[in-house]
Amino acid sequence: MRVCRRATFNAAHRLYRADWSEEKNDAVFGKCNNPNYHGHNYTLEVWVEGEIDRETGYLIDLKILKELIANEIQERFDHRNLNLDCKEFANLNPTAENIAIVIWGLIREKLDKRYALSVKLWETQNNIIEYDGK
Amino acid sequence: MRVCRRATFNAAHRLYRADWSEEKNDAVFGKCNNPNYHGHNYTLEVWVEGEIDRETGYLIDLKILKELIANEIQERFDHRNLNLDCKEFANLNPTAENIAIVIWGLIREKLDKRYALSVKLWETQNNIIEYDGK
Amino acid sequence: MRVCRRATFNAAHRLYRADWSEEKNDAVFGKCNNPNYHGHNYTLEVWVEGEIDRETGYLIDLKILKELIANEIQERFDHRNLNLDCKEFANLNPTAENIAIVIWGLIREKLDKRYALSVKLWETQNNIIEYDGK
Amino acid sequence: MRVCRRATFNAAHRLYRADWSEEKNDAVFGKCNNPNYHGHNYTLEVWVEGEIDRETGYLIDLKILKELIANEIQERFDHRNLNLDCKEFANLNPTAENIAIVIWGLIREKLDKRYALSVKLWETQNNIIEYDGK
Amino acid sequence: MRVCRRATFNAAHRLYRADWSEEKNDAVFGKCNNPNYHGHNYTLEVWVEGEIDRETGYLIDLKILKELIANEIQERFDHRNLNLDCKEFANLNPTAENIAIVIWGLIREKLDKRYALSVKLWETQNNIIEYDGK
Amino acid sequence: MRVCRRATFNAAHRLYRADWSEEKNDAVFGKCNNPNYHGHNYTLEVWVEGEIDRETGYLIDLKILKELIANEIQERFDHRNLNLDCKEFANLNPTAENIAIVIWGLIREKLDKRYALSVKLWETQNNIIEYDGK
Repeated sequence: MRVCRRATFNAAHRLYRADWSEEKNDAVFGKCNNPNYHGHNYTLEVWVEGEIDRETGYLIDLKILKELIANEIQERFDHRNLNLDCKEFANLNPTAENIAIVIWGLIREKLDKRYALSVKLWETQNNIIEYDGK
Repeated sequence: MRVCRRATFNAAHRLYRADWSEEKNDAVFGKCNNPNYHGHNYTLEVWVEGEIDRETGYLIDLKILKELIANEIQERFDHRNLNLDCKEFANLNPTAENIAIVIWGLIREKLDKRYALSVKLWETQNNIIEYDGK
Repeated sequence: MRVCRRATFNAAHRLYRADWSEEKNDAVFGKCNNPNYHGHNYTLEVWVEGEIDRETGYLIDLKILKELIANEIQERFDHRNLNLDCKEFANLNPTAENIAIVIWGLIREKLDKRYALSVKLWETQNNIIEYDGK
Repeated sequence: MRVCRRATFNAAHRLYRADWSEEKNDAVFGKCNNPNYHGHNYTLEVWVEGEIDRETGYLIDLKILKELIANEIQERFDHRNLNLDCKEFANLNPTAENIAIVIWGLIREKLDKRYALSVKLWETQNNIIEYDGK
Repeated sequence: MRVCRRATFNAAHRLYRADWSEEKNDAVFGKCNNPNYHGHNYTLEVWVEGEIDRETGYLIDLKILKELIANEIQERFDHRNLNLDCKEFANLNPTAENIAIVIWGLIREKLDKRYALSVKLWETQNNIIEYDGK
Repeated sequence: MRVCRRATFNAAHRLYRADWSEEKNDAVFGKCNNPNYHGHNYTLEVWVEGEIDRETGYLIDLKILKELIANEIQERFDHRNLNLDCKEFANLNPTAENIAIVIWGLIREKLDKRYALSVKLWETQNNIIEYDGK
């Protein structure tokens, strides 16, 4: 059984590598390499897999998951510039893939080990990422 | 291959265990333990996995799945109080997890055994459950 | 110019009039007259009309509107039984129309008089109400 | 890790088999066997699974996936009659299942072999298909 | 006060005028003039304006509106070819604008005269029409 | 009659006034005054009101409206930093209200004068602006 809590956050970012030339950054990342940044409303689904607690009828109390997302993800990334404000992306290109991996890691660290974890991240309504740590 | 039919139903419920004190019910279930109930528009996706019938091009006729959901789920739970009106929850706390398990069981009983089954249930746009019988 | 803040709340309700017979209540309200209640995830849009403040670029600070909705509407109705828990519906049938009128009145009372106000309420994805006080 | 690009296309179709009698076509396909066709706004999610490129932070450049879908799927099926205009369905009943299989095959042919592929197709908001080639 | 009932129907259509040359039809209607038709999932909102009935708390019983839409609109247009199957479009180009006007007229004829009426029609998620009879 | 074309664009912005102190900017704009910017997926609906052309059945060819939005709005604002990259906001705080006013003006300039115009802008799913030039 899997349960999910959905949340959103808004952030600016820019796709580029400091160790590449501007030409190469432009060739690979196109308009996503605007040096002045652009931004997104990210939608996040955090999926937790495990066994239902027969006593409560909960797999996990979704209030706990809601607070975990608020403390670890929204507090950290909402209304931020991912490249400039967030140490997680100081040396990591904030592609949707890397954001999903970072989010997975941040929640994994705080989530009880008996649960399996995967995250689904919408960068736009058309661009979606799914990551389960593998 | 998997095919899905989506449907909705509206119901009242309350999360609590009759064998617990009010204090414990409040501590665990919070405002979901309103003794006068609250309610939700539940959205349900019923996913059926199997082999496509090469003659019809259907995995399963979705009209059959639509009727199965209407007869077994919507007829039973729509515009009901899950705790008071539905024998399935007479002794089972109607958490979204347990509702998903009950729905899975009711459809499993009527669905041809050659199909695998999983259900996805939205209690709100932010709280989602997935159950495949395992 | 009009600006809107969207919010949600979940509640149980029953459509009926205490001064009508059960037969008449059933005839008029059908399955919405389940004596044990049913429920909905209500989605609310609160629309405020007025002049933009040229200095801030805000018509109204949406954080203020968000808090107003939280304090006056969600605090009052979320996870409640509208018929039993809410004095606003002690003698008023909680149809979506009446809920919209009550919400409009509650926000109108707290909203600066220079703004015009209207509310839009989804009871389900298919049933929607709009009310502007007229 | 999996990434997805979403797209839409609009098409007419009719469900029937030329080698069946009208009676049998009507019995099996009902109103979907309107000889004058009906139509849908199809929504497509194309999911690609693989390893993230540590250098770019991309699993696959979604612009490539977007163009692949535009060239192979939208160009072929958008604003078309699937039965009459599309050779893929000259001898194949254009059920949502078969459309998903055809789309999977068309993208599979052009997609780098190191990626696994699955597609998700909404025929309506209530009818959904998922296919991964197995 | 305004209340709305939402519904959907699926249909094929082609934009063209029989009294124009193919060249002119192509120039004006582009790929919407596919002679073999294409199709859409239309989403319809029917908005009724009037006074609330203080006794019932309804502006109009939405079940009545639901049935009116089912009988007058869905029965007529769902799973149909608008050009070939529907006499309303025998001599009228089935643009989204004209479909909205026809729907408005069909419902206006059956709706109590004390109500004002407007309709909102989505041809796709990006193309929307609103018509109130003026 | 009104018709609408919907479109999206992604941008970074920061709410602040250069002629205010940081303290005042923080007090008024809170976390929206992140000096490193944050961002949004903006969704835009452009509504055009006028008379239907009885010959074509169009109020306006939505392809024209689509191109107008692409050329005037998306080309200008998509993947941009509104404060740094867009001269429209060089001396104008890019609140959702001001963005809506600017968009309205840019489209108004290019839209045939026989049409009335209004725009609806979602900054997030919860924050919406409507502007019609008055």
